[in-house]
Amino acid sequence: MISHSDVAAAGARIGSRVRTTPVFDDGERWLKLEQLQHTGSFKARGAFNRILAAVEQGGLPDAGVVAASGGNAGLAVAYAARELGVPAEVYVPETAPAVKVAGLRALGASVVQVGREYAEAYDAATKRVADTGALFCHAYDQPEICAGQGTLALELEEQTGGVDTVLVAVGGGGLMAGIAAALEGRSRVVAVEPYGCPSLHAALAAGEPVDVEVSGVAADSLGARRVGDIAFDVARRTGVTSLLVSDEDVVTARRELWRRYHLVVEHGTAAAYAALLTGAYRPAPGERLALICCGANTDPSDLTDRGTPGS
Amino acid sequence: MISHSDVAAAGARIGSRVRTTPVFDDGERWLKLEQLQHTGSFKARGAFNRILAAVEQGGLPDAGVVAASGGNAGLAVAYAARELGVPAEVYVPETAPAVKVAGLRALGASVVQVGREYAEAYDAATKRVADTGALFCHAYDQPEICAGQGTLALELEEQTGGVDTVLVAVGGGGLMAGIAAALEGRSRVVAVEPYGCPSLHAALAAGEPVDVEVSGVAADSLGARRVGDIAFDVARRTGVTSLLVSDEDVVTARRELWRRYHLVVEHGTAAAYAALLTGAYRPAPGERLALICCGANTDPSDLTDRGTPGS
Ligand SMILES: Cc1ncc(COP(=O)(O)O)c(C=O)c1O
Ligand SMILES: Cc1ncc(COP(=O)(O)O)c(C=O)c1O
Repeated sequence: MISHSDVAAAGARIGSRVRTTPVFDDGERWLKLEQLQHTGSFKARGAFNRILAAVEQGGLPDAGVVAASGGNAGLAVAYAARELGVPAEVYVPETAPAVKVAGLRALGASVVQVGREYAEAYDAATKRVADTGALFCHAYDQPEICAGQGTLALELEEQTGGVDTVLVAVGGGGLMAGIAAALEGRSRVVAVEPYGCPSLHAALAAGEPVDVEVSGVAADSLGARRVGDIAFDVARRTGVTSLLVSDEDVVTARRELWRRYHLVVEHGTAAAYAALLTGAYRPAPGERLALICCGANTDPSDLTDRGTPGS
Repeated sequence: MISHSDVAAAGARIGSRVRTTPVFDDGERWLKLEQLQHTGSFKARGAFNRILAAVEQGGLPDAGVVAASGGNAGLAVAYAARELGVPAEVYVPETAPAVKVAGLRALGASVVQVGREYAEAYDAATKRVADTGALFCHAYDQPEICAGQGTLALELEEQTGGVDTVLVAVGGGGLMAGIAAALEGRSRVVAVEPYGCPSLHAALAAGEPVDVEVSGVAADSLGARRVGDIAFDVARRTGVTSLLVSDEDVVTARRELWRRYHLVVEHGTAAAYAALLTGAYRPAPGERLALICCGANTDPSDLTDRGTPGS
């Protein structure tokens, strides 16, 4: 369980190691432009908080830090470790795209490729941690990770003067948990998930975290098979609900963010905007709404100019 | 000639018809993210100011407004006219790409294709204005256009608490003139131009606006053949200097803005960043520097992920 004070402590701990990302008022709502964060997503926040909290609590093991992720979480851990002068090992499946492996290496991480699926890489990472005493950085289900991600909500609150509602995409739920804890009692948090990545939706329906099948355009960032325990607890405690959107609507929303604002985001991020465009979420008149643009590690080459410039 | 009070009046006139675009502190400087403006560039500011000033001074002619531009200036006039319920005619050469024509039409403008070069379209537009009494919206060399563009500098000043230096790309110089007038006596403005589009540089060397040959990657936005008279006067009065950068450096700078920040901008915009990356402009220690990201009407498909995520 995490609360507002954990997030506030994370903010103080991380300080200026992460960027204060701008918010954009498009005339109807705020967009928190977290894709401008170091390594292109909010994940840098949690990574710094996790590593710095360990330093505070007696120092880091010589073995450094370990993560299991070929996506944004891995990049963020590699970056934070490099900035803090700590060795990082990132476990990914043998099937990880070469470009992702190169990206991790460019940030100075040792990349270990194991197994055919993410689950095997994850198991190898946790075994390595058990063997060496390295600090494991989970992609979403650790208190320091969730609290770190939540620091973007403290910024958002200061930048906007407070909002009624935050719309945010959910994978394993670390980001959502951090935001909901940060804003508990002041803002409502609404999670958005593609039908193909319904981890929180399924957990709320079942009354506990359950495994789901994952698929679709946003699976690389939102495709956690099971929502984190911390995320589930915070969602229940603070009344977070989950809306589902189709892949088609996610693709359209990503294109619209480019067409209207010249913002490039990854499909996972576009899910939150899809909930607005489709009317799955309808703000009340005067509702103060913020949308989290959480990441942009995407190939923009399908976003070509189609003769309909944004307005 | 325009001064701070013209820009302040423009700001009051335009009000919330344009977006307050965010500024991003990347840790070393501010980036004013004006590519988030309506129609993807700062040009909406000048267009609104020009049309609204005419309304104030006795109303608009029934013939509406006329512009000559297949680029951002044309889009902005089309957009502002539509928002204000005014007919707009935009003149472009017959050689204008179909996608640009479609973009103008999508914003409700009548597009008139005349001649093989921009100069011919421009002549046809001014003839049309003489015949019908329509309001001509120049791409850069009218006081209301320059003053409107300058409103972004008033925002910038409020958002940052003031800067020492602003780096900005120059084509015809309307944007530079507005900014330099807005910040006169408080901030230094440094213009950046590709070697292939040196209108201000050549004018400052010659002591008066002179025609230049234009070419290169940024010619579509920065390729004015001659800097505006207003721009030249303001540049001399306020001490604006012009730095030149190569096309190769512009291309690299545009890629770096994507790699480091996941920002997509057009080549013209990237010129200002190129001056920093190459050391053509070297800020002093502690210098408060802002860079104007002025437009993003570009095809991002060459900005593919190359395995080196930003940090
Ligand atoms: C861009 C982006 N958005 C959203 C998420 C989902 O975050 P969480 O797993 O904390 O729910 C991720 C996770 O990788 C991400 O990379
Ligand atoms: C994106 C962008 N940047 C810069 C400029 C240059 O502006 P100016 O002609 O006012 O110097 C333009 C002009 O079209 C533009 O579209």
